[in-house]
Amino acid sequence: MSLDDSAARVAATLEDALDGFPDTDLTAAMRYAVSRGKRLRAHLVIAGATMLDVPKDRADGAAAAIEAMHAYSLVHDDLPAMDDDDLRRGQPTVHVKWDEATAILVGDALQSLAFELVSGPVTHPDPTVRAELALTLARASGGAGMVLGQAEDIAAEMALIPLNLDQITGLQARKTGALIGWAAMAGARLAGEDPARLGRYATALGLAFQITDDILDVIGDATRAGKRLRKDAEAGKATFVSLLGLDGAKSRAEALVADAIAALEPYGPRADALRDTARFVIARDA
Amino acid sequence: MSLDDSAARVAATLEDALDGFPDTDLTAAMRYAVSRGKRLRAHLVIAGATMLDVPKDRADGAAAAIEAMHAYSLVHDDLPAMDDDDLRRGQPTVHVKWDEATAILVGDALQSLAFELVSGPVTHPDPTVRAELALTLARASGGAGMVLGQAEDIAAEMALIPLNLDQITGLQARKTGALIGWAAMAGARLAGEDPARLGRYATALGLAFQITDDILDVIGDATRAGKRLRKDAEAGKATFVSLLGLDGAKSRAEALVADAIAALEPYGPRADALRDTARFVIARDA
Repeated sequence: MSLDDSAARVAATLEDALDGFPDTDLTAAMRYAVSRGKRLRAHLVIAGATMLDVPKDRADGAAAAIEAMHAYSLVHDDLPAMDDDDLRRGQPTVHVKWDEATAILVGDALQSLAFELVSGPVTHPDPTVRAELALTLARASGGAGMVLGQAEDIAAEMALIPLNLDQITGLQARKTGALIGWAAMAGARLAGEDPARLGRYATALGLAFQITDDILDVIGDATRAGKRLRKDAEAGKATFVSLLGLDGAKSRAEALVADAIAALEPYGPRADALRDTARFVIARDA
Repeated sequence: MSLDDSAARVAATLEDALDGFPDTDLTAAMRYAVSRGKRLRAHLVIAGATMLDVPKDRADGAAAAIEAMHAYSLVHDDLPAMDDDDLRRGQPTVHVKWDEATAILVGDALQSLAFELVSGPVTHPDPTVRAELALTLARASGGAGMVLGQAEDIAAEMALIPLNLDQITGLQARKTGALIGWAAMAGARLAGEDPARLGRYATALGLAFQITDDILDVIGDATRAGKRLRKDAEAGKATFVSLLGLDGAKSRAEALVADAIAALEPYGPRADALRDTARFVIARDA
């Protein structure tokens, strides 16, 4: 199960879901917003499920749900009132290609789609699992999770005193860590196993991901990233790089990946796809 | 079970839910956004559930969920890029009292809260019911339901040719009818009965509600309504009043309420609260 396999599966699932929607401009803009991406979160769901012997097609609903949720957050984060970005994944952002009203509504509809996917019968035959996936997804994405992290990030940009390492770690645990954590634990939920057993992997992975994002914002190639870079330095924001230095940030991310991999020890070779994913998180160039 | 009783119950449920959130500006703005309103949708849930002998406290989760969903839609609809309204329920809108970024995030977090409430164990002991409520709520609110209706409404405002009666009826069935319909049928879902039996009531009620909104936009008192009125005429938009005339619109709303009440016939006197609600929908002055 490679990242490319997962990306192809989740693209097909999202396409199928949107084919069931009315043929409108809104649906076209939703399709555009979910049409690209690394699909890391979907892959975590699918690789985690596969490791625990969940049939692949039973992971598709949850995998598509987390990508719809992630895509909604990007569309809203890119809005002029938020990060004001024109480029995402190498393409014009939704509010640039359409307009702000459409971008707000596309984000809103993609969040609904995430819950439609995760609570639908195709996601799992056991309604207890579906309701639990919906409940945990709502908590991870809402006002105590991802949305709070984004609100804190915007507040930090306007603050006179840059955040310290503890504050940034907490903020990012919510902004990006919560959804990555949900994705890493979804496979266990689908398998009917205790998701907490993957908690250490999920937490370390989420933080390593964000540190790498901060590193790529400094050393990355904008064309390859498909989005504007050097934003944090321009804004004078504290980041893992500004606080730890470039080498310090790299070492920290590597240590976290080592810890994530160590946390998979009880699963033996079955966890190789999750190990590869952890290595990918810091080795990626975009 | 009066509207006031339901309003008090749902306010308490929402307050309790938000008390569980971190003490942040975002939570304060979420609390503000859900702190007022007629609570018609919550009352439909509670009155429908009570009619079918569901204990009141078992209707609270679904009732609070639909009000959180409704509140999110108002916060986003009021944004400058959408309807650009400064006043809602007699108070400054969220983007006026805070800012646009906060308003976008408050709406996003309230949508998540709706799904957190509806899929949580307190909503119903049977996970099949919780997953079904989440799934139908996602469909009612998303890109084939409420959000599509709002997108169509914005498009209609920019169109050169006003919509005709069929088009407006379809648009409003999505924009306001979908959530009202979900609310009217939620009690049956909580009771484990066939929600389709309340479908005719729900559809007629939703349309009567919107026609009355169009009437109040023309003859209503802005202070009492707590929001800007006469918007549709200013924008040259087709409404039920512009298409049917004021008297024609009133007759149509009354006929729909009569139909909604007739559809409750099989339930006998147990349905009196739902009958009162239907009468309230056209008798309200705000």
